[in-house]
Amino acid sequence: MKYFITVICLSLFAVGAFAQKIDYDKRVEELGITLTPPSTPSANYVKAVRVGNLLYLSGHGPSRPEGGSITGKVGQDLTTEEGYDAARQVGIALLSTMKAELGSLNKIKRMVKVLGMVNCTPDFEDQPKVINGCSDLLVEVFGDNGKHARSAVGMNALPSNIAVEIEIIVELK
Amino acid sequence: MKYFITVICLSLFAVGAFAQKIDYDKRVEELGITLTPPSTPSANYVKAVRVGNLLYLSGHGPSRPEGGSITGKVGQDLTTEEGYDAARQVGIALLSTMKAELGSLNKIKRMVKVLGMVNCTPDFEDQPKVINGCSDLLVEVFGDNGKHARSAVGMNALPSNIAVEIEIIVELK
Amino acid sequence: MKYFITVICLSLFAVGAFAQKIDYDKRVEELGITLTPPSTPSANYVKAVRVGNLLYLSGHGPSRPEGGSITGKVGQDLTTEEGYDAARQVGIALLSTMKAELGSLNKIKRMVKVLGMVNCTPDFEDQPKVINGCSDLLVEVFGDNGKHARSAVGMNALPSNIAVEIEIIVELK
Repeated sequence: MKYFITVICLSLFAVGAFAQKIDYDKRVEELGITLTPPSTPSANYVKAVRVGNLLYLSGHGPSRPEGGSITGKVGQDLTTEEGYDAARQVGIALLSTMKAELGSLNKIKRMVKVLGMVNCTPDFEDQPKVINGCSDLLVEVFGDNGKHARSAVGMNALPSNIAVEIEIIVELK
Repeated sequence: MKYFITVICLSLFAVGAFAQKIDYDKRVEELGITLTPPSTPSANYVKAVRVGNLLYLSGHGPSRPEGGSITGKVGQDLTTEEGYDAARQVGIALLSTMKAELGSLNKIKRMVKVLGMVNCTPDFEDQPKVINGCSDLLVEVFGDNGKHARSAVGMNALPSNIAVEIEIIVELK
Repeated sequence: MKYFITVICLSLFAVGAFAQKIDYDKRVEELGITLTPPSTPSANYVKAVRVGNLLYLSGHGPSRPEGGSITGKVGQDLTTEEGYDAARQVGIALLSTMKAELGSLNKIKRMVKVLGMVNCTPDFEDQPKVINGCSDLLVEVFGDNGKHARSAVGMNALPSNIAVEIEIIVELK
């Protein structure tokens, strides 16, 4: 009987732990990531548009924490690993815009679709390894809800020669 | 008392003016833009597909008013300014398809997402200045509802060597 | 009177034939196409994400029936016709993912939006003829419901040097 009660209690605990929602804003803090309010575009577009429960984000670039952007072509000016780091910075920029638009990342249900564009040489073949920098970050923050449909492709040129540009569609609760 | 009534009246006028909807079809005319019915694609795709209140438009190119398309690579065959003009022509082509699909532009709620692709050299860095040609047009026509999330990126090649290709997602009323 | 009844019967037959739904799973079989369960991505993304009645598919590449992928740049390593065949293989890969995600292709209402990316040389201009390989397949399977909004563009590089990468949005019933 005692054993039976123990099993019941453990099961309830497990269910409770599973149902406990992750606090995404806190998760970002725990990862030591600082989200900074994004700059307003100077041209006739915006960082994000909401339609129903979908949030469409503009293509974002890799801002350096110390200012400026990570530039250059992967396969020539940057290694794949440096490209990965750039894509992670893009991910942080995307999170910053989500936070600024929504007030809290906890309004997010899941990541839906990523278009990851790598500024690279014509013979570069590891675009997925570069864009993983962003995908890994999204899963660090949102867990399985961070997984997304994705294309990771090579571009011959990007604005201001940034190394990576990524746009994303997010589903809201 | 008279002053009070005057304030009330002015307020009502202001609210009325604000609520007055812009006629987008008329706005296009006022801008001196002629929308021509788009050609039907010869292959197995269509110019636009509606799902719920979203209209997905195919990638459009820059038709010349006198016929043919604006071709060449920006940064080599075209200046940034010529690229801007090409992107504006793409915007007119997109508006033409919207009008043909919907009957009236007044069925549109807002622009949602633009993917602006510039046929350019590997060292060209001003894709945003080119795609502004389309973004500016959309805001001239739709005002704040013309603002959109956007990516402006460089391509090594586009169909028939057109200078710019842009696809867009539109929200309907 | 006999004539009248004949006309009625023929009309009813015509309406019945029209209302009869095409079995998309069967149609794929009739076309001699074998759909194989797609591999699970090793990185932090997934092959498809469903939001409401939309299914967003990741960028897919052209798997060879005998294993491996079709690689190379169209306009240099592959002809336009070989590119077309590669795009058809991508279409089969996309159908395989749809089937794996949904259980049956009959849950599909229509194709919505294709982004067709061709790995090509800077002077290649026939991206639409390449992506037709996928578009034609979709219409062979889904009829008019296979028609989609589309962009067909050139990329300077794709993952593992695959010849074509295509992502698609699908509307479900």
